[in-house]
Amino acid sequence: FGNPIFRQCCDRPKNTNVRISLPAVCFVWQIAMIILFGIFIRYDQESDAHWIEYRKSQNISSDIENDFYFRYPSFQDVHVMIFVGFGFLMTFLKRYSFSAVGFNFLIAAFGLQWALLMQGWFQSLDPMDGKIKISMESLINADFCVASCLIAYGAVLGKLSPVQLMVMTLFGITLYAVEEFIILNLIHARDAGGSMVIHTFGAYYGLSISWMLYRPNLDQSKRLNGSVYHSDVFAMIGTLFLWMFWPSFNSAITDHGDGQHRAAINTYLALASTVLTTVAISSLSQKTGKLDMVHIQNSTLAGGVAVGTAAEFMLMPYGSLIIGFCCGIISTLGYIYITPFMEKYLKIQDTCGIHNLHAMPGVIGGIVGAITAAAASERVYGKEGLINTFDFTGEWKDMVPSRQGGHQAAGLCVALCFGVGGGIIVGCILRIPVWGDAPDDNCFDDELYWELPEEEESIPPILEDNNHMRNRDV
Amino acid sequence: FGNPIFRQCCDRPKNTNVRISLPAVCFVWQIAMIILFGIFIRYDQESDAHWIEYRKSQNISSDIENDFYFRYPSFQDVHVMIFVGFGFLMTFLKRYSFSAVGFNFLIAAFGLQWALLMQGWFQSLDPMDGKIKISMESLINADFCVASCLIAYGAVLGKLSPVQLMVMTLFGITLYAVEEFIILNLIHARDAGGSMVIHTFGAYYGLSISWMLYRPNLDQSKRLNGSVYHSDVFAMIGTLFLWMFWPSFNSAITDHGDGQHRAAINTYLALASTVLTTVAISSLSQKTGKLDMVHIQNSTLAGGVAVGTAAEFMLMPYGSLIIGFCCGIISTLGYIYITPFMEKYLKIQDTCGIHNLHAMPGVIGGIVGAITAAAASERVYGKEGLINTFDFTGEWKDMVPSRQGGHQAAGLCVALCFGVGGGIIVGCILRIPVWGDAPDDNCFDDELYWELPEEEESIPPILEDNNHMRNRDV
Amino acid sequence: FGNPIFRQCCDRPKNTNVRISLPAVCFVWQIAMIILFGIFIRYDQESDAHWIEYRKSQNISSDIENDFYFRYPSFQDVHVMIFVGFGFLMTFLKRYSFSAVGFNFLIAAFGLQWALLMQGWFQSLDPMDGKIKISMESLINADFCVASCLIAYGAVLGKLSPVQLMVMTLFGITLYAVEEFIILNLIHARDAGGSMVIHTFGAYYGLSISWMLYRPNLDQSKRLNGSVYHSDVFAMIGTLFLWMFWPSFNSAITDHGDGQHRAAINTYLALASTVLTTVAISSLSQKTGKLDMVHIQNSTLAGGVAVGTAAEFMLMPYGSLIIGFCCGIISTLGYIYITPFMEKYLKIQDTCGIHNLHAMPGVIGGIVGAITAAAASERVYGKEGLINTFDFTGEWKDMVPSRQGGHQAAGLCVALCFGVGGGIIVGCILRIPVWGDAPDDNCFDDELYWELPEEEESIPPILEDNNHMRNRDV
Repeated sequence: FGNPIFRQCCDRPKNTNVRISLPAVCFVWQIAMIILFGIFIRYDQESDAHWIEYRKSQNISSDIENDFYFRYPSFQDVHVMIFVGFGFLMTFLKRYSFSAVGFNFLIAAFGLQWALLMQGWFQSLDPMDGKIKISMESLINADFCVASCLIAYGAVLGKLSPVQLMVMTLFGITLYAVEEFIILNLIHARDAGGSMVIHTFGAYYGLSISWMLYRPNLDQSKRLNGSVYHSDVFAMIGTLFLWMFWPSFNSAITDHGDGQHRAAINTYLALASTVLTTVAISSLSQKTGKLDMVHIQNSTLAGGVAVGTAAEFMLMPYGSLIIGFCCGIISTLGYIYITPFMEKYLKIQDTCGIHNLHAMPGVIGGIVGAITAAAASERVYGKEGLINTFDFTGEWKDMVPSRQGGHQAAGLCVALCFGVGGGIIVGCILRIPVWGDAPDDNCFDDELYWELPEEEESIPPILEDNNHMRNRDV
Repeated sequence: FGNPIFRQCCDRPKNTNVRISLPAVCFVWQIAMIILFGIFIRYDQESDAHWIEYRKSQNISSDIENDFYFRYPSFQDVHVMIFVGFGFLMTFLKRYSFSAVGFNFLIAAFGLQWALLMQGWFQSLDPMDGKIKISMESLINADFCVASCLIAYGAVLGKLSPVQLMVMTLFGITLYAVEEFIILNLIHARDAGGSMVIHTFGAYYGLSISWMLYRPNLDQSKRLNGSVYHSDVFAMIGTLFLWMFWPSFNSAITDHGDGQHRAAINTYLALASTVLTTVAISSLSQKTGKLDMVHIQNSTLAGGVAVGTAAEFMLMPYGSLIIGFCCGIISTLGYIYITPFMEKYLKIQDTCGIHNLHAMPGVIGGIVGAITAAAASERVYGKEGLINTFDFTGEWKDMVPSRQGGHQAAGLCVALCFGVGGGIIVGCILRIPVWGDAPDDNCFDDELYWELPEEEESIPPILEDNNHMRNRDV
Repeated sequence: FGNPIFRQCCDRPKNTNVRISLPAVCFVWQIAMIILFGIFIRYDQESDAHWIEYRKSQNISSDIENDFYFRYPSFQDVHVMIFVGFGFLMTFLKRYSFSAVGFNFLIAAFGLQWALLMQGWFQSLDPMDGKIKISMESLINADFCVASCLIAYGAVLGKLSPVQLMVMTLFGITLYAVEEFIILNLIHARDAGGSMVIHTFGAYYGLSISWMLYRPNLDQSKRLNGSVYHSDVFAMIGTLFLWMFWPSFNSAITDHGDGQHRAAINTYLALASTVLTTVAISSLSQKTGKLDMVHIQNSTLAGGVAVGTAAEFMLMPYGSLIIGFCCGIISTLGYIYITPFMEKYLKIQDTCGIHNLHAMPGVIGGIVGAITAAAASERVYGKEGLINTFDFTGEWKDMVPSRQGGHQAAGLCVALCFGVGGGIIVGCILRIPVWGDAPDDNCFDDELYWELPEEEESIPPILEDNNHMRNRDV
């Protein structure tokens, strides 16, 4: 890529007009979705009108055993995390809140459709009729898949056009479906909360793209690369909804019964522990012990990421606390030392610090998963519990925990490779100068892609008389 | 109504003091509610302490089959839509956020009580003892009923006093209960998500009221009829909670099992599709391809409205996508062309553009419902599934899908007539100049009905010294 | 405490540097949590991997009967109330939003861990192996316990350092676990929604602390003790999430089946009724009938507090409305008359007015609970329903409703004594001048404990050119 002609071509003056490209991408891709859904996607047995007959034939005693009732509350929580959680977490920039929450909305809405198709082809194609059968669990999986692309969005926040984000999402979902299939089905690793398949993959995918799209003169946009008081409060909405609903995220597709129950408890505890160490390190890092909102908004979530893979295992409550404890420290130190280092020496500009929130905790989560899987025993899980938790059935019925640990580690490597490799390739594609991204001196600015309301400053003169009146009243 | 004396009387200088009328309305109506609840409303079998005996007598195996567990997660989501969703969606105006969220709160809290009574009298009066028996499903229905009045509030936002809103709600709920009874019980139309009974009725009710209360000099309040940066971000909270929880809205009172499951999937897909076409049209409509927040805040929801009636039918996933696709286009075009047209030529001032978000998509939803009902077949639904989905039981056991389609269309007409007719009558009532509404040059202003905090601009001088200190610290 | 040396020592110039103390407290206490969890806390039967074997041995027909599915939706709602509800409710101050939402986050995350231990020791220590077995219900109880400390935070908002808040929480949780054990287990009072154990205790605990820490010169911080327009809108997020999810709060740990169902209905109705009377009194209290945001943000919630104890009883729908009706009036009048009175004559500075929102309604709730329990009859509840609702089993099988009423009243007294007594003692501890609290002239200011972003005012000059451009575009 050092080819000077390619570089030159990429460095032409920027044209941020997306009036042709954005509608074209949205229309064409949405029409493609409709056609592909028409060909491939149908309701599964539990959401089809034949359920009432199926239920009777299978002797299922009550409608409450429809998987809908096991999954729906968790699904809605995950849905909130995707749209409000990720969306608002990124509103912290002073003049990029519209794009944060709006583009997050756009790419998630596209991504989940594409994810239903990609994951369906790989995992739930019915051999009888060649159709993908979807249910609530498919919707949760689609939301999960989208999460990896929203994580990647965090690294490039403020620097990409909406068209680039759509392209990034298209490839991201595709890569995700492949690596997920390899990790979960071929390697048979377990990854309930997606520390590996979602967070590690998503974060390295985003970081690699950001590396490929390095902007040497980004400090010309420094004036906009920061928060104001209210934008930080908006971002806390995102943080809290992510934090509160993370137990649902990690338990959404685990086994019915004790699996979901245990995953929720473990995640709840890990997250609580993270908050305390984040506050501790944040306070230590300042001369007068003041806290930094960036740490509170982000590092408090690291425990949820790291406990993802092992959430359904018998991690024990104290185990969850230990994971949270470590991740709060590592993540906050990451914001203080690693992010500036990466920007300066590795040429990786990471707007939201996803390396600290998703990449490192994701890798830790994968490692913890491998260790706890390898250490699993019948004494702790019970004979049936072990089979149930690790799904040692069918072709994997001879699997043992120690080998499972190896498979988990292999899964982590696959996620890393897909993230870095995929990100580099997609980064190259995104450098082609046709996507309408911002010039270096105008990043982090909603102005480029949004009709903005008048400034508040311009109101007072018009209101003058009114103000007089108001003052008299008071 | 062209009578000059009536007009003259209506056009007297406005007095916005509601110190007598508002407390009087609140107190008297609340006391009336208590008395009527005392006479009429009791717990039903599943929420009464006798449940434990009833359960045993009916051989119900577990408490989990109490309807509470089928409905409660959806109920809470619907509840969030009513109070946070509608409330925050309307906070977009720069100086009307208190009223948007506060009056929404007030009229919803009153409306749901009145709805429990009205719907109870029409639909669940126990012939044995003349009491209305309420359960979780009644609460959901009451929230639905309230939704129609909150939709109407969108049309008149910024122009009515809280007393007028209470009157509008009182009549709105009453009309709703009657048209719902006619449509669902007498005509036997199906309307799971209320495209007809909630959205079409509510929107035309609000638009007719706005038409009757036409303010020729409203542009004197133009300075306040717009957003500022942060108010648009607040409105996105409303948009997203509506968008995310719409699957719960459309599935909240559908059949247990596959009915709820399918309704949630269909709504999820329709909404995703809408987002892409909304973005496309919004971008196309501007010279430089910039997006307009008004479209993103509103039109992205049109798919949820339009899929309401048919959500529980075998619409097929691609069918849902197509509905969403069309509604995103129509709704956004509505904001660009139809709203200005209606204001200029039809004298209908529609503050939130509910014609684009609820009226047109609602009518589309009714039509889609009629078509899909008429096209239903045993091949697709299964014999029992068809009976189950369309409730072809009891006196309707000889119904066939093609006739059901006709009944659906009849239902849509009833909703339209009640909306327009009711709105005109209630609009007349609201023109009587005793309600304390704002003058034309002071609409969209919280100042009239709220004690406002001091302006932010007035802080700096007081903080001067403090600011100095602050600057030294940094 | 009148000892002049003690006073003098307490009145030394304030040093708000918490760089040593805050990290130390967080680290040490979190490590202590890990050790204690390691020794004491394990999964219970429904969250342990042995569940699958247990289920079969107990002949439980389906995984859906795992308590997880009865409790999880309510748990997540309660979780939202704790972190978003309480957190955002307190963001109303113009320059204390970071601390409101951030310290709320910190103390809740610590408190829930400590609560799991304290409540476990008192209530669910397994005599077989000396371990505490936790499940979803334990997590809900921990969140409840935390709620009492967050209520207390409301009284001292803006006046305590984060270290003091941690100390206050440590003791608050400890006291809570003891009083809860006495009230629920020894006295056998029922308190589903915690009117007594949570609200009465928490509020008097906070008020007593505030009394002990009276700041005679607090009016020197008057410039910051108020809201601005947007901070009031943020606070409405808190209000609404508390209001909407209160039915889940009051029903979260009630009996499966009708208990949860009825508690949700009663709370829903009480809250609706409160809104109307709050609006009425708020409007009456101003010369021109304007509403006060403080009342809307707070008093609308009083009905949920007051219906807490009796929510699971056969209160009847109109009974719930009456409770809400009265509490809206009393709470709003409290803001108008009692809070200023308490500040002036009783030397109790109550920043959020928790006396009006939690203390008075909590006491009312306790009294209502006693009366309705005493009035319970087999005619209304049914024989089994009465036993079930009041848990007249085991050693309490000879209990009768009239005596139960007395026990309820005794429970209320215990909650009051623990609140006032505990608050006075903890208040003394917090007066020791080592905790880094703010001086009287700098309260309600995030500046002391947070790195704040630059003021918005400082942006325009930098943006000047950009603004020009923007104006041309529009």
